[in-house]
Amino acid sequence: MRIALGLEYDGRAFCGWQAQPNGLSVQDALEKAIGRMAGHPIRLHAAGRTDAGVHACQQVAHFDTTANRPLTAWVRGVNSFLPTGIAVLWARPVEEGFHARFSATARHYRYLLLNHPVRPALLAGRIGWFHAPLELEAMRQAATYLLGEQDFSSFRSSECQAASPVKHLTRFEIAREGDLLRFDVSAGGFLHHMVRNLMGSLVHIGKGAMPPDWMADLLALRDRTLAPPTFMPDGLYFAGVSYPAEFGIASEPAFRHYLV
Amino acid sequence: MRIALGLEYDGRAFCGWQAQPNGLSVQDALEKAIGRMAGHPIRLHAAGRTDAGVHACQQVAHFDTTANRPLTAWVRGVNSFLPTGIAVLWARPVEEGFHARFSATARHYRYLLLNHPVRPALLAGRIGWFHAPLELEAMRQAATYLLGEQDFSSFRSSECQAASPVKHLTRFEIAREGDLLRFDVSAGGFLHHMVRNLMGSLVHIGKGAMPPDWMADLLALRDRTLAPPTFMPDGLYFAGVSYPAEFGIASEPAFRHYLV
Repeated sequence: MRIALGLEYDGRAFCGWQAQPNGLSVQDALEKAIGRMAGHPIRLHAAGRTDAGVHACQQVAHFDTTANRPLTAWVRGVNSFLPTGIAVLWARPVEEGFHARFSATARHYRYLLLNHPVRPALLAGRIGWFHAPLELEAMRQAATYLLGEQDFSSFRSSECQAASPVKHLTRFEIAREGDLLRFDVSAGGFLHHMVRNLMGSLVHIGKGAMPPDWMADLLALRDRTLAPPTFMPDGLYFAGVSYPAEFGIASEPAFRHYLV
Repeated sequence: MRIALGLEYDGRAFCGWQAQPNGLSVQDALEKAIGRMAGHPIRLHAAGRTDAGVHACQQVAHFDTTANRPLTAWVRGVNSFLPTGIAVLWARPVEEGFHARFSATARHYRYLLLNHPVRPALLAGRIGWFHAPLELEAMRQAATYLLGEQDFSSFRSSECQAASPVKHLTRFEIAREGDLLRFDVSAGGFLHHMVRNLMGSLVHIGKGAMPPDWMADLLALRDRTLAPPTFMPDGLYFAGVSYPAEFGIASEPAFRHYLV
């Protein structure tokens, strides 16, 4: 039987999604807790493998089990075995054809950025920070160059294992509410560090160091070394996954609304 | 010279506001950092002494110094000496007649409560949690009994050192947005554990265990042992202080908006 899970986690407490020999990843913690409930070892597959320090408000993962448990066991039961920084939000039986990673048609990320002279204290590690004023319109204009199918070599980490640097961005929205900036990005898939690298360039443009159309130049250069540094992971949230409707997994990004 | 400061802090990292022999309080951390900037020992006085685990998004405190520094030194400079969980938001010179605690005419608290079957992961320790559905209207009705000048003995911790159990509540508003409940409470002053004790009773009424007018009965009983237990500190925020306009300190509660 295949079970899909919705997951929320605080990236600070873990060394990223992917299983590690030290056992300190999100995947390790979940496989241990679910295995304890199932009574047999579990292999979990996630829609997106987040880096250390990156959070998730709606990650989706699946596993196969021979154990016959009520769905509440995979939510309430597993949560009682998990550390405070991870929670299973929901569980749903899915057909064998469903794969959390390969069935996904789009991934959605959100970046929260505090634009204020004083660093965050209450949301330290949970929100990005830039001290100098950022120009919303300049960043919005720069973001339009990123939409569509593009070669994102300039925003790809040297450790990226993707077969191709070409990705298709369908959404890059930037909203401001007081001191808070919210960046919503959607694509079929992302390269390693892609959102944080794009954030680094947007902030560079937002502070007025370069004009918005510099983003088009950076894309055309296809050279990571010419673009600004990777931005801090603190404000990055894996915010949702889209699947074909037939799988019955909510296809829109869902934020527990208190994440602004 | 007397300086007033606006402060934000994450209560989880400290044993409450008040200076302790172990030096692990918010006051200890601030006096150490400010003293380092001033070049002499500092005594800090806060508008409200928060408990362990209680946060502040707008605490006000003052200190006296013989050091002549630009205001940015008391903000940016002091912040560079503080742990991540505390930040000075602003600094302002005030007249000798100003006292952060004794000049205050009202204190404002906010309680954030997640009302969802699944415990919070991303905001663990930063939001209260109740798993079963809560009736907003019942809690709102119960809260109306709390307004005005009342004897709050039923909601006063046994360790409370206040001279009188009589306090004057001017505001108790409850708002719901999806799974999030926001409780905004204002009074001239509060008894020890008063907001958390009131929350315990409101949740008891909200889940349907008792009718709204039970709150009036509890008040009339003036007996802490007859009211429900103290609610968890996780979602409690010291949210602002009001001062007479002559002091030039913003008199309305100010939330850095990302606190919902």
